[in-house]
Parts: sequence; C-alpha cells; structure tokens
Amino acid sequence: MATRTQFPRLLQDGVRLLRCERNSNRNSRRFNHHIPQDPRFGLLFDIDGVLTRGRTPIPAAKHAFSKLVDSQGRFKLPVVFVTNAGNTLRQNKARQLSELLEVQVDPEQVVLSHSPLKMFRQFHDKHVLVSGQGPIIEIAKNLGFTKVTDVDTLRNRFPLLDMVDHKRRKHAPCAFEQYFPRIEAVVLFGEPVRWETNLQLILDVLLTDGRPCYLPKEVPDPHMPILACNMDLMWMAEAPMPRFGHGMFLQCLESVYNKITGKELKYTGLIGKPSDITYHHAEHVVETQAQQLGLKQVRTIYAIGDNPEADIYGANLFNKYLQKKVAKARAKKAAQKAMRQVELEGTVTAVVEEVGEDVPDVLGCEACESILVHTGVYRPNMEETQERNAYRANHNGHVHRDFKLDPELKKPAYEAEDVDVAIDMIFKVESAH
Amino acid sequence: MATRTQFPRLLQDGVRLLRCERNSNRNSRRFNHHIPQDPRFGLLFDIDGVLTRGRTPIPAAKHAFSKLVDSQGRFKLPVVFVTNAGNTLRQNKARQLSELLEVQVDPEQVVLSHSPLKMFRQFHDKHVLVSGQGPIIEIAKNLGFTKVTDVDTLRNRFPLLDMVDHKRRKHAPCAFEQYFPRIEAVVLFGEPVRWETNLQLILDVLLTDGRPCYLPKEVPDPHMPILACNMDLMWMAEAPMPRFGHGMFLQCLESVYNKITGKELKYTGLIGKPSDITYHHAEHVVETQAQQLGLKQVRTIYAIGDNPEADIYGANLFNKYLQKKVAKARAKKAAQKAMRQVELEGTVTAVVEEVGEDVPDVLGCEACESILVHTGVYRPNMEETQERNAYRANHNGHVHRDFKLDPELKKPAYEAEDVDVAIDMIFKVESAH
Repeated sequence: MATRTQFPRLLQDGVRLLRCERNSNRNSRRFNHHIPQDPRFGLLFDIDGVLTRGRTPIPAAKHAFSKLVDSQGRFKLPVVFVTNAGNTLRQNKARQLSELLEVQVDPEQVVLSHSPLKMFRQFHDKHVLVSGQGPIIEIAKNLGFTKVTDVDTLRNRFPLLDMVDHKRRKHAPCAFEQYFPRIEAVVLFGEPVRWETNLQLILDVLLTDGRPCYLPKEVPDPHMPILACNMDLMWMAEAPMPRFGHGMFLQCLESVYNKITGKELKYTGLIGKPSDITYHHAEHVVETQAQQLGLKQVRTIYAIGDNPEADIYGANLFNKYLQKKVAKARAKKAAQKAMRQVELEGTVTAVVEEVGEDVPDVLGCEACESILVHTGVYRPNMEETQERNAYRANHNGHVHRDFKLDPELKKPAYEAEDVDVAIDMIFKVESAH
Repeated sequence: MATRTQFPRLLQDGVRLLRCERNSNRNSRRFNHHIPQDPRFGLLFDIDGVLTRGRTPIPAAKHAFSKLVDSQGRFKLPVVFVTNAGNTLRQNKARQLSELLEVQVDPEQVVLSHSPLKMFRQFHDKHVLVSGQGPIIEIAKNLGFTKVTDVDTLRNRFPLLDMVDHKRRKHAPCAFEQYFPRIEAVVLFGEPVRWETNLQLILDVLLTDGRPCYLPKEVPDPHMPILACNMDLMWMAEAPMPRFGHGMFLQCLESVYNKITGKELKYTGLIGKPSDITYHHAEHVVETQAQQLGLKQVRTIYAIGDNPEADIYGANLFNKYLQKKVAKARAKKAAQKAMRQVELEGTVTAVVEEVGEDVPDVLGCEACESILVHTGVYRPNMEETQERNAYRANHNGHVHRDFKLDPELKKPAYEAEDVDVAIDMIFKVESAH
C-alpha cells in the first residue's frame, strides 16, 4: 500500500498536475475517471463549502457524484457525509442532500455533529439544559436523553433572568421557580438565536449549580458538565466572507464566563470535527457500508473538506491515530511471528516484547487522507499575503482553544480546485494500487 | 474644608456609626437630617441599584428625595442623575424618575451614557453604524450625527450577512449593495437585541473597512473608529444576581474580533462611568444648577452608586483629577503671592517657579467623594468569603479591559446601607463645615 510520502514518487506527474495550480488551465484537469475495480477505500465529505454554499449546490458536486453511483442513483462505494451542522434530524439532511446531488442518500450515511452523543450514556438520565436551533428537544430524545429543557422554556419558568431585550422584560417571578428540578448538565447543540438570552441563562445555570432562582454564596468549581457539538468558528455561505458558526458562540460563552469568574470554562465533551470522536464514528459507518456493499475491508478513508482547521486538521489527527494503530499492529505481528519461530525451533532464548494485547488482529482502516478544496472557507491567495493577512493569526488561529494547534496538522495531504477534481485524483491514486 | 482623611477625625463617632455595620440595629441609623444652610455641595446619583431595582423603586429612595426638595417638589440643591443607561432620550428618563421619586426632575438633570458624544464633533459628519435599543437614530441625530444607519437597516441592505438565525436567512444579494455609502465609524449606544446579528455585522464592517459586500485582501489595521457608551458589565435588576449590561456585549465583540484577527479591538472613545469624560460633563451640569439656584460655588460633589467598578471607581478617578487640579492651583497661588512680595520689596532675587498658566483662578469643584450603597451590585458579605468568592476575580475584575484597575480606586470614601442613610450622612458631614 502506498504511504502518504510515497504518493508523490509513484504518481509525481499526475498528483502534481492535480494539485491546485492556480495559474494553469483549469479545464485541462477535469477528467472523467471511473471507480477502480475492487475498491478498498471510502469517502468522507464535508458539506458546506465542498458540496454546497448555503443552499446553493456547488456545480462540480453533481458531476462528482454522478461517478459514485449506479444508474439508479445508488452508491457503489462507502460514502459518508460528515458535517458539523446539528440543527436538524439525519433524515432531513439526507433528504436535502438527495435532492441537491440527485443521488439516493440514506440517513445512515449522515454523521451530524451531535451523532456521537448516543455514546454518552452516563448523561442520558440527567436533567439537561439544551441550546441550539431546530428540533433540539426531539434530537436530544432520539440520542437517548430523557429529561430535557430548552433555553426558551427555562426563560419562561424563571421570568426575571432574561433582561437584555427591554421589550421582553418581565418583572415578577414565577411562583413555582423553587420547584423546578435542578439542571445537572448543559448540552450545546448548535448556534442558538438571541445569543444574549442563551449566554445569560447558561451562565445563570452554571453559577448557581442548576438553581437559577437562588443567589449562590460562591461560584461552583468545577462547574457542571458541558457537552458541546460543533466548534466550527466560521462556515462558508453565499457572502464573500465566512459567517459565524457555533464556535463563535462558544467563544463568547468562554469569554463571558472568564470575565465574570476569572476561571476557564471546561467542556466535558467537545464533539464534531476536528474531534477524533467524530472520525471514529464515521469510520464505523464507512466499514458498515462496505460490508453492506459486499466490498473488501476498507484500507483508506479520503476526507474532503474546505476548512483547514476543522476538516483537514481533524482528518490528519485521525490519520495520526490510525498510523499509530498500524505501527502497533505490525509490531505485534512481528512479535507473534518471532514467537512462532521460537516455538518451532524449540528454543526459549528470544525475548518477545509485549506490544499490547489490545491491538486487534484485523486492522480496519489504516489511513485517513485529507483533501482540501478551494470552494469554501480556504482561499489559495491567502498564502501569498501571509505577512499582511491577519486571518492567519499567529496564535491558535481559528481552532478551538482546547485543541492546541500543531500547524503541520493543518496541511492537507492533497489540494484540489473542487470536489470533482478531488474525486478524479482519488480514483487515479487508488487505481495505481 | 475637611479633606477626605480628616473626616474620620472630625466626625469619628458619627461617620463610624453611619458606615455600614452589618450587625448593628439598622433602625437606629435612619435620621431625618436637613439640608445645611448655604450648601456648597452637589449630588450625583446612579439610578439602578441606588434608586431603583429594574422598574421597582427602592423604598429608601423616596424618603431620601423628600429631603432634597421644597413643598412643590423642586430641588433645593444641585442634583444630577448619572446613569450608564442610554437607550432612551433624556426627557423620557426624567419623566420616569419624576414619577418614581415623586419630585420634579428636569431633563437637564439627567446625564446618560451617550450625553458626552455631543462634544465629539469630528464624527458628526461621518457615516456611522449605530447599535443599541430604543430610538438610537433619533438619539444620534439629537447629539449631532448627520448620517446614521442602524444594524437592522444594514442587514436589509446586505441580505447575505446575517445567517445565524436559520429562519431569517436570505439567499440572494440586494442589487444595490455596491452603491451603499461606505460606513466610516461605529457608535455603540447600548446592548442590542440579537447579539449574533450585531456582532456579525459590526465585524463585517470593521473587516471590510465599511464595505461589507466586498472580500478584503487583508484586514484593515487600524480598524475604523469605534465609540462605545456604557461599559457596565452587569447591573442590578430584580433577579438575585446582576444581569448582563452593555459591557458584556463589548466583551463578546472584543473577544470575537481577537479570535478572527489575532488583534485587539481599540476604542477611539469609551464613555459612561467610570470614564472621566462623563464626570466632567456631570460637574458642569452641577455648577450650572448651583448658579440657577443662586447658590455659591460648589466645592464637593458626592457621587452615590452601587457598583464599585463603575460608580466608585469613576468617582475616585475624577477625585484624583480634582485633587491634582487643587494642588496645582494652590501652588500657582503661592507662586503668585511670592511674586507680589518680591515686587513689593523691590527685589528680583526670588525665582518664581512656573506652575502652569492654564490653571484657572477660580477653582470650581475641589473634591468628588464616593459613597457605596448596599442595595445593588455590591453585597457586603462578599468580602467575608473573599478567598472562595470567584466574583472577586484576581485579574482586572469586572472593569473594562481599557481601564487598568487600581484596587485602591474601588474603595469608597464612605459606605451606607442605602441612599437615605447616605443623604443623612452627607448632611451631617457638610453641617460640620
């Protein structure tokens, strides 16, 4: 299997041709490759900035997807859509994608930012305050949460808390405030509407340990658990510059908490790209699809995205994990081979190093290759003005503060003008195996 | 004239009695003092937390004000209401106060956070983006601004910018975006509604140097001027804990700007308490009233507030300025006296030090004494739990980041249980002069 560093040697001309060369004739790169025989790979697609901009499909996307399906529009490869959006149910997102791309997308193929919360079972019986847009109560219950209150309900139960909007102020408490069950955790699904209301009420709940009608003598430390989905600072819609994402709301929340208490807000769980939790989940979905399609074990996942600090960073981080897993598995195999050799020869002189009994024998995916397209958040001309361009912040950049940014991990394995060029490149690379 | 440090010696028993003693019998301190003869002082009152909590008058306030007026409800002393609120016209605030306190409050007696903007004439002909609640376009024009656009208008002129609320998204640009006149400055009057919309659009304007339909090649540095009124982080309403003020919106704005660009947002003007601009303005209003009432020159201003980091800090900062002015004036007088002596004696041997020709001969106010009441943001029991209480942040606390907090300046000259006790104390102190 070709490794990441071998690709340029094996396919130097092809890959360099397919890398985004800004001054070349772009039309010459739009090939019409086909899926290789016996594919051993799966595809992860980000949505905004790769397949769509806001509600508008990116033209190259339909052409790209026509190569992935049969004549009935059914996928011939494992394909998963991994998005940090979370304000909708999977089935709705699948339906939207089906219409947009003119293919059949199953809800199982959609990984939303909150999908991994299914696994956080220790919180499912806690009374949680949820924040976000769309049917978040329904989403929370689908994920397994049993006691859910949203911010708007809390605002009505505790009428003295939300004071910023002068027209919505109430001046008398509700008689039943003290009977409202204590909030035990906070789940942030996505960017809400009226950030002032959400920031105020979430802070009230944190500072009062879940009883916002009481005046605390001191600030709880640590505060109650917070689970946050989707740390995307910005995303690409139709406007020239990216728009605020949920990550910007989290930035405000952290900043407000720190200003009031002097302490750092801490997340019990921060999921969605680039968190590896999301990629583990996506890998599992890819492998399930491969089995359903009767394909062999997937070796490589190609993750196509537009945001270096969410998509590329996340894919590269996951690739690091997979590489370590591969290295351990190889070491284990070598040790086992050495052990068998020792047994055959009837000697017990070799010392077999313990390499980890927990390393599985069947490896699963071995690599996650990141591909950066230029149709979204990232724009190539930003590199040319690096000294002048303040978007390339010298500090942690646009990555969430809890992910210490290793700049190397923002570099994609490949770049492509758009998703169609990316697909052709993958087919070419995989055909060479 | 008694100085601040002399008060305890002159009136030890009285002042110590009147200082907030938490375990004493509070009823014994509610005297019914009268305005001293020939008063040489004026009063500055904060409103929220001193006279009202939200819309509810604090009971002690009416009793206090009954001592300041004649039988027709007209003031017998210079009284100015200095509030960081700014979402209304002065006449409306004056009317509210008149009803609440059952006295006649003139609009001239009201200093709102934005009042000093009248003096910022260099901005009056610039196209300004304004943010806040209430009649801010009218307020801006009353202050002298001639070209004003609010955030909601900008949102409609540039429909692709405000994307957080999924239900309000538009997906097609307006045909006339490129003809919209460039924004040249931003004026933040007070906390807006829908912080996400305001944060997004203000950022767009700053990053595009006033042309939000264009994609900038680099971030403007420095950004356009920003004038902000009212930095109050929190204020006291009916809820047990303080509510977010405009300062919290500014905190989010600074944080968002820094996250995107890696740079610090800089204010050209930051007005409202504790900024000295506001106190200069209030001093001028006090002196005008003293003249209108036929009183002698005011020597001392008493500033009564509930927020150590806005009211007390601001009053103490202004007092420092006044003390320096007094010291310079005294030095100048001494030098002038020495000069006259030299002239009389016909000798020219003495060297008279230059002390500043710009120091006025008539001093005006000489001191600003701060009085902290316990009916608002500040609660006495917070001191007892100082190690545990995270509200007492070890860093800059709740003061705006542009005001480097000297903890000494948060300490009031006096404390009082409420505004009524404070008034009695002032009368007693002034009667001793």
